[in-house]
Order: sequence, then structure tokens, then C-alpha cells
Amino acid sequence: MTNVTIAGTGMVQFGKFPNRTMKSMVNSVVVEALNDSNCLPDDIDQVFFGNAASGFLTGQECIQGQVALRNTGLLGKPIINIENACASSSTAFNLATMAIESGQSDAVLVIGAEKMTSNDKEAPLRALETAADIEELEHFKKIISSEGAGSGSIFMDLYASLARDYMEKKGVTNDDLALVAVKQRKAGALNKLAQFQEDISISNVLTSRMISDPLRLMMCSSIGDGAAALVLMSKDFAKYKDNEYVSVKACSLKSSNDKATGFIPAPTRAASDAYEKSGIGPEDIDVAEIHDAAAPAEYIIYEQLDFCKEGQAVQLLKSGYTSLDGKMPVNPSGGLISRGHPIGATGAAQLVELSNQLRNRSGKRQRKNAKIGLAENAGGWIRNDVAAACVTILGKD
Amino acid sequence: MTNVTIAGTGMVQFGKFPNRTMKSMVNSVVVEALNDSNCLPDDIDQVFFGNAASGFLTGQECIQGQVALRNTGLLGKPIINIENACASSSTAFNLATMAIESGQSDAVLVIGAEKMTSNDKEAPLRALETAADIEELEHFKKIISSEGAGSGSIFMDLYASLARDYMEKKGVTNDDLALVAVKQRKAGALNKLAQFQEDISISNVLTSRMISDPLRLMMCSSIGDGAAALVLMSKDFAKYKDNEYVSVKACSLKSSNDKATGFIPAPTRAASDAYEKSGIGPEDIDVAEIHDAAAPAEYIIYEQLDFCKEGQAVQLLKSGYTSLDGKMPVNPSGGLISRGHPIGATGAAQLVELSNQLRNRSGKRQRKNAKIGLAENAGGWIRNDVAAACVTILGKD
Repeated sequence: MTNVTIAGTGMVQFGKFPNRTMKSMVNSVVVEALNDSNCLPDDIDQVFFGNAASGFLTGQECIQGQVALRNTGLLGKPIINIENACASSSTAFNLATMAIESGQSDAVLVIGAEKMTSNDKEAPLRALETAADIEELEHFKKIISSEGAGSGSIFMDLYASLARDYMEKKGVTNDDLALVAVKQRKAGALNKLAQFQEDISISNVLTSRMISDPLRLMMCSSIGDGAAALVLMSKDFAKYKDNEYVSVKACSLKSSNDKATGFIPAPTRAASDAYEKSGIGPEDIDVAEIHDAAAPAEYIIYEQLDFCKEGQAVQLLKSGYTSLDGKMPVNPSGGLISRGHPIGATGAAQLVELSNQLRNRSGKRQRKNAKIGLAENAGGWIRNDVAAACVTILGKD
Repeated sequence: MTNVTIAGTGMVQFGKFPNRTMKSMVNSVVVEALNDSNCLPDDIDQVFFGNAASGFLTGQECIQGQVALRNTGLLGKPIINIENACASSSTAFNLATMAIESGQSDAVLVIGAEKMTSNDKEAPLRALETAADIEELEHFKKIISSEGAGSGSIFMDLYASLARDYMEKKGVTNDDLALVAVKQRKAGALNKLAQFQEDISISNVLTSRMISDPLRLMMCSSIGDGAAALVLMSKDFAKYKDNEYVSVKACSLKSSNDKATGFIPAPTRAASDAYEKSGIGPEDIDVAEIHDAAAPAEYIIYEQLDFCKEGQAVQLLKSGYTSLDGKMPVNPSGGLISRGHPIGATGAAQLVELSNQLRNRSGKRQRKNAKIGLAENAGGWIRNDVAAACVTILGKD
């Protein structure tokens, strides 16, 4: 993939903003992304709108993009509503790259948006349950929640179950899990758009409320509201618009397959495909954003993406390699744990962070001379793996 | 667009099948479409899954495609969930054409599926209400339901309101509206996959229950269950697989824009774009499937698609031009009124019918020597127009 660029981005602060509407968040990110890319609404050929849970949480089951965009000047364009659970907006991005690569469009807009806070605090947890096969939900809950550990969130119970398994097999400790949260909060403290912006200590993490053993509150991503947008362009159009752009080197989407028939996790397959298509390997990456929905995911994904050999993930983090000032900062935005995780907005937010890094706009979080970035975004759960995994590789040129 | 083909199709009967599950319907259409295209699951590069209301009606808000496809051998592939109200699966098809045209895929699967029947008969009507901006729903209902005409279905009230306006402006009568239903049922009577398969008379229509004045029961499309699938391939791959294929000449998607600023309806803009891209005009079309969600829509859409001049639609139908044995049969499947309208499945079903017509497989409904087909599929409502309109033109070569 050589003709697709990111030529503009926009993002609102993630967090709990009960009085901010979906339309208001979407308006903000659209205006910012259009300005950043020197575009008027009429320059945009189509819009890909990623959202996962509006139907459940607000009742807007259909045409979510058209409704959210009705005051942006973009109505009239093709507007396509994309859902893939927590990977909704990276999936929208994946389709947007095709729209450019096919020659059908010169400029397209990708939006990821989610409005999760509401008066009913249980509603977001129930919404997330629909990212698994609801016909087997009770059975699934029974398997993943150990005795007495039911947190009310099936995905935190799931990550807890994965964490216990990982800790047992690889000798990982509670302190190691806490270290992920400490690293993420340190980065998030420098990000004005992050939900959490305070430095914390290991002791803060390990004394925070237990959610689902061994996961404590500060090891978990949080429910929130947020939106992020990206303008994608063909290289020629980005040059014509005199934009400082980054190139999309590869974008690969996969779903879970059956563990029984030669299981390789979806993120691993997506990464292999992206590495192969781009000719870029894990050793070439300068900066990465990965789907740390809970602390153990950071370590598991290091291994899935071949950032290190199996069992070496904790050592990689402890070495400082993935710290803000390391060779390959991972989650310089603060990641899901610190930036926050409004599910349909997360994939787009990761790509906004990487675009900023590659355009040298990340201020105190800037990875010096960043030339290659990788994002990994995952969503849902089916047959012992994530239901959707998207890996995107961006380059400075 | 010259490199995209439809190389295989599958479809189940539409109708009320309370005991048939989404997984069962989807399995059937996938197996049929794969067989028809000489494909194994491994030949398929990605899957576009169109559905509108599963979240509302069944609770499966997220990863609907992954769940529906879990037993088909397709899990593992990129699976993308697409929503655009009643135009969900034509939008999925639109994206699938991009996937081929971009060179990213040789073969992709498009599925449209909806499971609407449930114990709660009101639920589908409530689901359909979410295809408008729910923040103005009460206001919208007030405008469209004339005194005493509230049917319980906002879309039938909307079509009734459009019908009253159209009848007044163009001198159209109740008999004229009934004629559409008679034409559609006559075609549906020859379609084993249609929901309604009985011939009816004008008198049957005009004595059927009043839904929303002037719309009577037999003038309205029905709630139902259904699924349809298409395998799209690059021309080279279709030839390699030795398939009898049809070509996609153009596929154009638009959304509503603001009536205040030079209003042209979305279906008109989508059709103009498709005509221009394909070099094919309305006079070249041999067979068409259009979105007759209620009888007046058939006439309104004739004019929107430039099948006739303004005010000439009733005359066009009465002349027999759009009858099964006419120059350009419209809705030979029976249309939404007779084939049925499981919303997320409708766009795919239209394209299955046209593919069959162009491959000379339509039996007693066959338009002799059909070479060019057009499908128009519309969904949702925002700012005085449909929220999404997709026009696709297919050719025999």
C-alpha cells in the first residue's frame, strides 16, 4: 500500500462527560480534522463512521453516522456505519484505505465515536456483553469468572482469566501487572486529551479496588466518552493540498478462528500480514499503540506482535525499551488504561497519536525522530480469541 | 468499474419463520453462494455483513457477522459489520466492490441478513424508528402522522404522507396505488423465495385493512426474516474459477442532504452518478429492482431514477413497460411488497434477483435476453430524504 496517506486528524479529550453529546463531540473532531488537512466538507468523498454501542446505550440503532454528522456539512456524501466492537474505528480506517487505494476516492474521513456515560452505570457493562455471542453468554460467564471474582464486566473477568493463566505459565507477578499501569499513567500525564493525567506508583495500583482477581481498578481501562477523526488522502491529493502527511504502509484485519484447527491468535495473524505487506518488521518500529484494555494485555500483545520472544514481555517493559524515552515507546498516548477506552473511538485515537508522533507534534511525549509507527486494535470475543484484530503500520514518508 | 463481478449467489425464502435462527439462515445462503461460485471458504478474502436491527431485536449489538458466521468455515477472515438501515446490504456490496477494485481481494462475500419476527410484535416497529434521528422522533411523528392516521409504524406514516402529497400534486388515485401491489404480487406469485405468492386484484388491495391513509395493508412491505449472499470476484479470478458471472458496471452510494440548499433526492444523485460512471442510461436498462417499501415509492422512484419524466410514472406502469413481460420489468422478484422486506437483507436480495436475471436463471420471471440490470435500495430518513441510497448497475458481460 503506497498511495494512502493520513493528512489530518482531530480528537476530543476522552473521559466522563455526561453533558457532552455525540453530535457535539463529532462536530469538534470533524472541524479539527478538516482544518488540519486543509479541506472543506466538499473535498471529502465519503465518510466511514465507527461506533459500537450507540444502539444499546442511546437507542440510536441505525444511521448513527448520518445523525451524528447532520450539522457538519458532510450530509449528502456516502456515509457508512461500521461496527466491530472495540475495533470499530480501526475497521472503518481499514475500509477507508481501500476507498483510496481503489481510486474511488481522493479524500475520505474516518470517525470513531462513542458516548458511554449515562445515568445507568450498568448499561455500558451490559453493552459490552453483546461483543460476545449472546447465545452462549451465560456459559461464557461461568467459564471466565473464577469463584467469587465476577466483576460485573465480562471483559474484565476475561482479562483476569487470561492474566491468571499468563502469570502461572510465565512467572509474572502482581507487581509486573502494576508496572504496566504505572508506565501508561506516566505517559497519560503528558497527554491533555487523556482521561487520566496523574502519575501513580506501584503501591497506588496494588491498593486500588480489586475488580476481578488479579486485576485492580488502575489496571483496567475505563468507560468513557470520546471521538477521534482522520482524513485519508491519495498521495497526489495530499501534495496538492500541501499537507504534511504520513503514509499508510499496511492495514490488516483478521477475526478469531478455531483454536482446534491450528490456532494462531488474530492479532498475530494481522501483524504477520502487515509486516509482510509493508516489508517492515517489529525491529523497525519506532513507536506503537496497542490495545491494553487491561494490564496483562500489554504483555500478551508484545508477544503476539513479535515485539519479543515468548515469555520475554515483562523483561522488555522493565528494560525501558517500551517506555516514553525508550527505543520503541508503546502507548505514548497513555493507552487504553490512561487515555481511556470509549470503545468505538479507540482505534481512531491510536492512529491520531501515531500520526502526531510521525509529524513530530507530540510535545513531551514525542519519540525523537519517529519514522515508523504501528497500531494494534482488537474487539469482541468469539471462539477463544478476539473477534476482530486490526494492525496498521504508518510511515513518515 | 470494470474488474468487479458477481460470481455466485444464495438466498433463503423471505417470510415469517419464528423458529428459524439467524445462524441457520446465514449458513444456508453462504453454502449456496459458495457452491454457486465454485468456492471453498478459503477462497474468500473478506466478508461484508449487512444487518440493521439485530442489536435492537435480539440483543446482539456487536460482532453480528462473526456470531452468525461462526459455523461456516469463514471465521478467521476479516469480517466487517455494516449498517445503513434498510440499505445495509447494498452498502455492504458497495464496500465489497471497493475491496476487489483496490486489488486487496480476489473474492469477497457479501451477506444481508435480518431476523425480525419475535414474540413481541411491536419490537420491529420500534426498531425501525431508530432509522431516524431519535432526538427528534416525537416531533417527526407529529409531522408525518395526519390526524388519526398514526399506524404505529413511522415509516408507513411517512410513506402515507409522501403518498398524499404525490397524489395531490400529480392526480394519482387509490386505484393507481393498488396497481403497484397487483403488479408486485403477480411477479411474487412466480417466486418461490417470496414472502407472498398469491395473485391479487385491485379490489383485494382496496378492501385490505387501512394502515395509514391512503396506504392499505397490501400496499405495504411486510416485516419478516431473510438472508441473501453474493460472491464478488475480480474478472480474472471468476474466469479462473470457470464461473458464469455478471459485471458490476457502477455502484453509487449517497446520503440525504439539506433540502434548504438545492435539494436533489439521494436516489437521484446516486443514479446520476451510476449512469455517468457506467455510460449506461435509464433507456438501456432491461430489468430493475427498486425499493418499493410502500406502493407510492414505486412511482416516486421511477421519477427519481429518470425512468420517466415527472408526473409520468403511473402512465409508465399502466403502459406495461415495467411489467414482467414489458420492455423493462421492475421488481420481477415481487419487490419489497411481495418478496418481503427483512430490512438488512433487502439490498442483497435485489442483487441476487438481478444476477439471476442476467444469468438467464429466473424461470417464469425471466426478462428475455436481459443484458443490463439496475438496483435501487434506500434506508433510513434524515432531513426530508432517505439517509442512504445505493444504486447499482450490472451487466451481462
